[in-house]
Amino acid sequence: MKIHIVKIGGHLINDRKSLHDSLEAFCKLQEYKVLIHGGGRKADFISNKMGISPKMIQGRRITDKETLDIVIMTYAGIINKNIVAILQSYHCNALGLCGADGNCIKSYLRKVTNIDYGYVGDINGKSVNTHLIKFLLKNNIIPVFCSITHNGIGNLLNTNADTIAAYIAMSLAREKDCKVELHFCFEKKGVLRNVQDSESYFRKINFHLFQKMKQNHTITNGMIPKLENAFFALKNGVTKVSIGLPNCLNDVNNNNQTMLCL
Amino acid sequence: MKIHIVKIGGHLINDRKSLHDSLEAFCKLQEYKVLIHGGGRKADFISNKMGISPKMIQGRRITDKETLDIVIMTYAGIINKNIVAILQSYHCNALGLCGADGNCIKSYLRKVTNIDYGYVGDINGKSVNTHLIKFLLKNNIIPVFCSITHNGIGNLLNTNADTIAAYIAMSLAREKDCKVELHFCFEKKGVLRNVQDSESYFRKINFHLFQKMKQNHTITNGMIPKLENAFFALKNGVTKVSIGLPNCLNDVNNNNQTMLCL
Repeated sequence: MKIHIVKIGGHLINDRKSLHDSLEAFCKLQEYKVLIHGGGRKADFISNKMGISPKMIQGRRITDKETLDIVIMTYAGIINKNIVAILQSYHCNALGLCGADGNCIKSYLRKVTNIDYGYVGDINGKSVNTHLIKFLLKNNIIPVFCSITHNGIGNLLNTNADTIAAYIAMSLAREKDCKVELHFCFEKKGVLRNVQDSESYFRKINFHLFQKMKQNHTITNGMIPKLENAFFALKNGVTKVSIGLPNCLNDVNNNNQTMLCL
Repeated sequence: MKIHIVKIGGHLINDRKSLHDSLEAFCKLQEYKVLIHGGGRKADFISNKMGISPKMIQGRRITDKETLDIVIMTYAGIINKNIVAILQSYHCNALGLCGADGNCIKSYLRKVTNIDYGYVGDINGKSVNTHLIKFLLKNNIIPVFCSITHNGIGNLLNTNADTIAAYIAMSLAREKDCKVELHFCFEKKGVLRNVQDSESYFRKINFHLFQKMKQNHTITNGMIPKLENAFFALKNGVTKVSIGLPNCLNDVNNNNQTMLCL
């Protein structure tokens, strides 16, 4: 079975029209498909509304107890359920999941080293319940994942959505009967050479170029873990990884986005 | 197939120990089972934290746009996912659902008459997707419903959890191969004769007695719709309806709770 793993994040989630357009593009994918969404900006908004300033260190969220409740409410609640309702209105039989649901993504609390990230769940090659995902797909149910996982002993944890997308893709790619493509969609045409110029996207990035870009700081903080996830997936059986606008999901020529290769 | 439909609400949701005890009792049910939960008190708490006073008329919530977002976050987010994580820790393969997920409960916006309840979804005999519920149950997945539904055209709506429990029970009871029991669990031993005396619960209430109790105001506001849902279910094929503490779920003698009969 051919499976598209689609991650949507960034401004796509916050802007009503962008979200609808993204979901419409997702619906048009003809093969099996899985959606993963972020929602950090909405979580910041709700956090501030509750009088809690989001805590960030080096661009990464510190998930204390209060913040954990906020990200659960935001990601698994308002964002996930609205996405599912919109997909259903497009006759796409979506079903929203966090990692606890059907025990589909198990994580472990990140160990404290220099920085205490709080209630953050890390995942590994054994975390994803591919049996459940394939079972749902084969029964015409489209899984929609938020980036909340669980540790199996009753606790929910906050996990990076790009990482979840990459591990779902890799875990399915390991199965004999699956051919998996991974798409990171956001509000830009791809990985930009110059962040001021929205047209300056790379058509292709190979692993060697990525290493060079890290060294000479062509790519910024947030893009580094995204590309690391992307290359990790590519090295672990995922056949195609792209980064770009959601309307490129249905572009078979792969011209208007950043394609990754080893 | 014999199916237990269990609703938990009231203080059971808010108190950590009560919630764990309730879920443990739920897990011990040997037959097929479905959980439905409320969460009004938690929604009030989060609403107040966001600087929005809950709006109530005659004990019923008015769901304006802001409140709709809060109940979605609270019911489908924090409460539903925590319940699922706890059940998973008890090796009960729970999967959380709102009505949009897998199109499992479709509702329609309540028409404005005297009072505008806002974004409230009413349901009917055709609302529940029994096919999905039975499919999950037969595949060893325990559905856990929050009281958020959808209208099929992209909107989420707030629906009373007791009503959802009753309609899920009735809809399954209509199917040839199902025998359904409905249990309303809360922090009291049953329907009380005297609200000051926690031991004064009725062992049995028949429909005639219920009508009399309404007339002479033995039962208070919140209990009337609960009992109306309960009798409605009993009149529509549900074989047993009980109201009481969650630890009575596994009490086959039905002595320490209120049993309803026609």
